[in-house]
Amino acid sequence: MGKGKSFFAVEAATGNSLPVEFAGATLDEVNEASALAWEAFPSFSETGLETRAAFLDRVALEIEAIGDDLIVRAMAETGLPRGRLEGERARTVGQLRLFAKEVRAGRFQELRFDAGDPTRKPVPKPELRLRNVALGPVAVFGASNFPLAFSVAGGDTASALAAGCPVIVKAHSAHPGTSELVGHAVQKAVSDSGLHPGTFAMLFDTGFEVGQALVADHRIKAVGFTGSRRGGMALVKIASERKQPIPVYAEMSSINPVILFPNALQQRGADIGKAFAGSLVLGAGQFCTNPGLLIAIDGPGLDAFKDAARAALAETPAQTMLTGGIFKAYCEAVQRLASHSSVAELARGQDGKEFQAATVLFETDASSFLAHPELQEEVFGAAGLIVKCSDERQVLEVLDNLEGQLTIALQVDEADHPAAQVIVPRLQQLAGRLLINGFGTGVEVSPAMVHGGPFPATSDGRSTSVGTLAIYRFLRPVSYQDFPDVLLPSALQNSGTGK
Amino acid sequence: MGKGKSFFAVEAATGNSLPVEFAGATLDEVNEASALAWEAFPSFSETGLETRAAFLDRVALEIEAIGDDLIVRAMAETGLPRGRLEGERARTVGQLRLFAKEVRAGRFQELRFDAGDPTRKPVPKPELRLRNVALGPVAVFGASNFPLAFSVAGGDTASALAAGCPVIVKAHSAHPGTSELVGHAVQKAVSDSGLHPGTFAMLFDTGFEVGQALVADHRIKAVGFTGSRRGGMALVKIASERKQPIPVYAEMSSINPVILFPNALQQRGADIGKAFAGSLVLGAGQFCTNPGLLIAIDGPGLDAFKDAARAALAETPAQTMLTGGIFKAYCEAVQRLASHSSVAELARGQDGKEFQAATVLFETDASSFLAHPELQEEVFGAAGLIVKCSDERQVLEVLDNLEGQLTIALQVDEADHPAAQVIVPRLQQLAGRLLINGFGTGVEVSPAMVHGGPFPATSDGRSTSVGTLAIYRFLRPVSYQDFPDVLLPSALQNSGTGK
Repeated sequence: MGKGKSFFAVEAATGNSLPVEFAGATLDEVNEASALAWEAFPSFSETGLETRAAFLDRVALEIEAIGDDLIVRAMAETGLPRGRLEGERARTVGQLRLFAKEVRAGRFQELRFDAGDPTRKPVPKPELRLRNVALGPVAVFGASNFPLAFSVAGGDTASALAAGCPVIVKAHSAHPGTSELVGHAVQKAVSDSGLHPGTFAMLFDTGFEVGQALVADHRIKAVGFTGSRRGGMALVKIASERKQPIPVYAEMSSINPVILFPNALQQRGADIGKAFAGSLVLGAGQFCTNPGLLIAIDGPGLDAFKDAARAALAETPAQTMLTGGIFKAYCEAVQRLASHSSVAELARGQDGKEFQAATVLFETDASSFLAHPELQEEVFGAAGLIVKCSDERQVLEVLDNLEGQLTIALQVDEADHPAAQVIVPRLQQLAGRLLINGFGTGVEVSPAMVHGGPFPATSDGRSTSVGTLAIYRFLRPVSYQDFPDVLLPSALQNSGTGK
Repeated sequence: MGKGKSFFAVEAATGNSLPVEFAGATLDEVNEASALAWEAFPSFSETGLETRAAFLDRVALEIEAIGDDLIVRAMAETGLPRGRLEGERARTVGQLRLFAKEVRAGRFQELRFDAGDPTRKPVPKPELRLRNVALGPVAVFGASNFPLAFSVAGGDTASALAAGCPVIVKAHSAHPGTSELVGHAVQKAVSDSGLHPGTFAMLFDTGFEVGQALVADHRIKAVGFTGSRRGGMALVKIASERKQPIPVYAEMSSINPVILFPNALQQRGADIGKAFAGSLVLGAGQFCTNPGLLIAIDGPGLDAFKDAARAALAETPAQTMLTGGIFKAYCEAVQRLASHSSVAELARGQDGKEFQAATVLFETDASSFLAHPELQEEVFGAAGLIVKCSDERQVLEVLDNLEGQLTIALQVDEADHPAAQVIVPRLQQLAGRLLINGFGTGVEVSPAMVHGGPFPATSDGRSTSVGTLAIYRFLRPVSYQDFPDVLLPSALQNSGTGK
């Protein structure tokens, strides 16, 4: 595709190059893609709702039409198992169809009508009509850990297209073959829908140059990103230093605390420990919502939890990580925790081959956790840390010192409700989603989902990247005052959808 | 009030000190106010809707109860005439009451309910309930040009309080007496409503230290500002460099272009010229929505417009500006334009005493305007610039090179509609509000109003600072998964307002 530096895809399980070569984009190609997207923007943003919805449905169909090739390719490139990838594909096409429905419903336009009153004193009241308009072309960065649902045609792309924004994807170099298959599917849907070819483009790059140039381009009006804190903040910086700064929706780092309440621990500490182990190792821990931190008051209930978690983890095989780089970073982070003076290793999963990570569960006490802010840093992978507290007061102190999170889960029994009632109002200031007696690792794609949260979980805690609310990230309100019907956008005309 | 450096209010018309002394805040007092606001936040954000609405109504009543003292004081400090200030007071209390209604209606909570399905395969569907929660304590900067409607109890304060956010106002030093009267009114309403005293605080400072410390304080979670581009961007920088960056809603600079279409000019060029002159000099041009730029195709219609504007402006007396600093900056900016090699002076209003500014209307041609980006810089005051274009193509070129605006107005007759239809889609990318056959200087406080726009009109073009939508600036969504009723916030309970 591109004319830049070429590269090979890498098999996650072996670190070996796969046979097909991919070509990175040049800066000229970034410029060309941005120019095309800008050209496509006026028509794409004003397509009728049915046209845009049908296009999203068609993208879903085209992705399904790739068939098993997509799964096989993604398995090779990411090391993720078939079942997980089939589920992720279902989620990806389901997401596109959900946004198609959302577009058809039209609510996201948020139409408002204020009647005028020419007789009002001292000044006449103007007539005002309001709707949301699309921000403009959006740059989307594919994520390493969800090669389908947070990548080329993932949540950011689906919600930006639904909003009426052309999309340029910077594909993640960890799964170029998967990206190419999906990218072609979207391009076919664009063309078969008779849309401007600039509606969608995809660029490859194994480095940072292409992505940085994209975010700096004056025709790009918003950015969607899922990845590391360092990567996200680098994009935020570029976006804020532009002549016209633009919003960056970067989902970055979260350790998703789980608070174990005393009665729940006492009644079913072992059950919770086993369930926790299952959540921790899901997808080799490579979820944004991986439960990386446990907070509990020490005692027999916590001991039962630990025993069960230890037993479950001991039987857990090592799992292939997404890339050699992620594997290396995980090993280093685990090593840092293992050698930390205030941290003890509590349990460890089975070892594996190279690129396969063993799960590790650590523990520390509340005072050490509070004294060492580095213990809050996200470890991307299946590593967890238990923070033992001496009493409820210490639990509160730990909570008051937590950074922003995507999710916080509470394990509670009925007898814990009074204590939980005290804590929930604080927790809602810390996270986008709170869960009772579950773990955050399943992220439902639905209207009431929030997959977002205060910094550093995301760079913009007022938004979500999963669920129908995600469309609002790419919209802004415009008010039309005293417009004759013929000059109004059709949704606001007297004969339009809104009146 | 404060323990910092004291200062006197200044009479706008004379530059003389007024007799009462005010005390600036110290950094200790900033810290104390933030600590109190943080303490007030949990209870204030969870007040029942009726309690919060009644509080806003009470603030309006208390402001009215100050009576004429408020108007007299504001007249002295700002130089604005009685009629304008009485209108602004009506707008301020009307705004508070509108937000009270909005709070009672409860729509801003955006409650969402997704039913669960424990039998779903392969994984059960969780139950999700969503609501918007308040961001936290908000710092509001009073504006110099609206001593009531954009100051201590103005739009930012009203919308933040409505959202459930405690507010700390940094009062503008140009009208400390006015601020103190309103600040006491709000404090009385807080106390009479039985709310936590940290719900509202006001700080004085003649410099930047207090405001900067406020924005940097970790307990402040959002900022509302109306003022200069330099001032707004300084706050954006501080907010983005915090350990936890926060949103800044800064309304900064806009020249509010007016596009004069050929048929409208031909039919009623003189009428438009007269109406324009009236809008330009309103409030000595000290409106964010002041029409500072006219774009038109040269010809007899434009000549008629210019003749009428010239005649009207020649009869316009000079007007007292808000402060000596603003007067000086206006004179310098006018001088820069007058001596600009590509700019000609077209009309001038009457001269006045010191601190009184004369209106000036300049003209240039499109090529010069495009070649000199500095001609787009906002002149705060009653100065306008006409950009003469040779044809429609040149009008489009000028539009394509405009920065973001609060408003863009079109003067059109029916015969201009085809040409306007081409331009409107571009304009909606440039401004928050578009008007037909009017000027942007009246800003209606209502549900369909957008007083915002792309950078540099504001630092966040996805929002509005006037109208009921303004409340959304201070909210973020939170999702509650599988919560027992007793742990949910009341609005989301089965017996709550939403179900």
